[in-house]
Amino acid sequence: MIRVLIVGSGNVARQLYRAWQGSTEVVVQGVLSRSRPDTGFEGIPYYAPGTRLPEADVLLIAVSDDAIPQLSRELGNTPALVVHTSGRTPMKALLGQQRIGVFYPLQSFAPGREIDFSTIPICLEAEEKEDLALLRTLGESLGSEIHEVDSEKRARLHLAAVLVNNFTNHLYTLSADLLEEGSLDFSLLLPLIRETTARLEGTNPAALQTGPALRNDRQTMKGHLDTLKDPGTRELYEVLSKSIQAYHGKEL
Amino acid sequence: MIRVLIVGSGNVARQLYRAWQGSTEVVVQGVLSRSRPDTGFEGIPYYAPGTRLPEADVLLIAVSDDAIPQLSRELGNTPALVVHTSGRTPMKALLGQQRIGVFYPLQSFAPGREIDFSTIPICLEAEEKEDLALLRTLGESLGSEIHEVDSEKRARLHLAAVLVNNFTNHLYTLSADLLEEGSLDFSLLLPLIRETTARLEGTNPAALQTGPALRNDRQTMKGHLDTLKDPGTRELYEVLSKSIQAYHGKEL
Repeated sequence: MIRVLIVGSGNVARQLYRAWQGSTEVVVQGVLSRSRPDTGFEGIPYYAPGTRLPEADVLLIAVSDDAIPQLSRELGNTPALVVHTSGRTPMKALLGQQRIGVFYPLQSFAPGREIDFSTIPICLEAEEKEDLALLRTLGESLGSEIHEVDSEKRARLHLAAVLVNNFTNHLYTLSADLLEEGSLDFSLLLPLIRETTARLEGTNPAALQTGPALRNDRQTMKGHLDTLKDPGTRELYEVLSKSIQAYHGKEL
Repeated sequence: MIRVLIVGSGNVARQLYRAWQGSTEVVVQGVLSRSRPDTGFEGIPYYAPGTRLPEADVLLIAVSDDAIPQLSRELGNTPALVVHTSGRTPMKALLGQQRIGVFYPLQSFAPGREIDFSTIPICLEAEEKEDLALLRTLGESLGSEIHEVDSEKRARLHLAAVLVNNFTNHLYTLSADLLEEGSLDFSLLLPLIRETTARLEGTNPAALQTGPALRNDRQTMKGHLDTLKDPGTRELYEVLSKSIQAYHGKEL
């Protein structure tokens, strides 16, 4: 039985606790957080900062990226393995600890949406083999796919995640507004969005590229730019079109 | 029984023919195309340009956008309803015809991927009520969701489709390359991509925005820009981040 103390009470912390409830391999000993969480951690003790902590095998830090270095220092000297769950933060940001590692679930956590950990990859890093093995068991207890990824590669993954999650979501946002301005419902686009992602399975996205920029269809691009009223959105349209053409070897 | 003559032999034409095979409401009378299609239209006659065409209720033009005006003229005077299937082309691009309309399936058609028409919207336009009713029956025979959309709104939909399909696919392409440079597999990102789109159902995408640009997390953004070697991709990262911040009222 792996004993885990969860540090932090945000969305990642809550979802991990929920996923380990009833586990036969992992027991969550409690939650350490600046203030007592209102909800999400029923059935385990709350620990305030500076109080005596229970024995644990893993201290799992799930707090905002910037808070990780100071928080790991404040945990004091512990024989437990101390890990963070951040994509963009190097393992070495964990300060003042003997055994450090990373347990990064590659997923976007949004309030109100339950994550099925069995469908997502978890990226692990540790300095010692035994610690890596411990984290692997921890990840496998969630049914997740396990990958060993060092801090540099993890930062690369995190950047790619920003492109496919944050940036695409912004394109969805701009599209929703465009449709709203024309009294059209965003749901009209959902089948297209589903198809765009469904066809990615097993195919290189470069081979799936279509559209006016790829065809260098200037008339359509001009019409689109005329429809876009906001200068920032026009710039975005132009830069994305230019990037498609540069990538696929065409001239704007 | 609605009698359809398909004009064009590309992907849209083929998929519509396939979808109407065995229909009890629609019969495809033949395919008119510049050259005889190798495959995809088994069981119906081929008509070369300039030959005598069979009687039909609807001539359905599924050719490249630029070819629509001239082609509709070449069809000569016909009592049939002549429609095109293009998102970005106005209905009035159909020249020299008495009865015109649009039958636009809002989906991306890629070779080798079968479209399930029952899951996609079809946007209709016609000048006469009876023609609109005819097109509605035609769309409903595919099980599609039917929307009446005029040429201006359809152009807006097409622009939005470019944002959510072409532009997001390009972001997937750049991400796949980023991962490949780090010997990481693109499939690592698929669960995140699935989640990013799954949560769109019933939610305004603006409310789902996350990421370093939204948080104005300059340190992470600087790290990302340092990782991106290609100047065009750096520009794209900056313009998208700026657009997110402008939209959500933050300063870069």
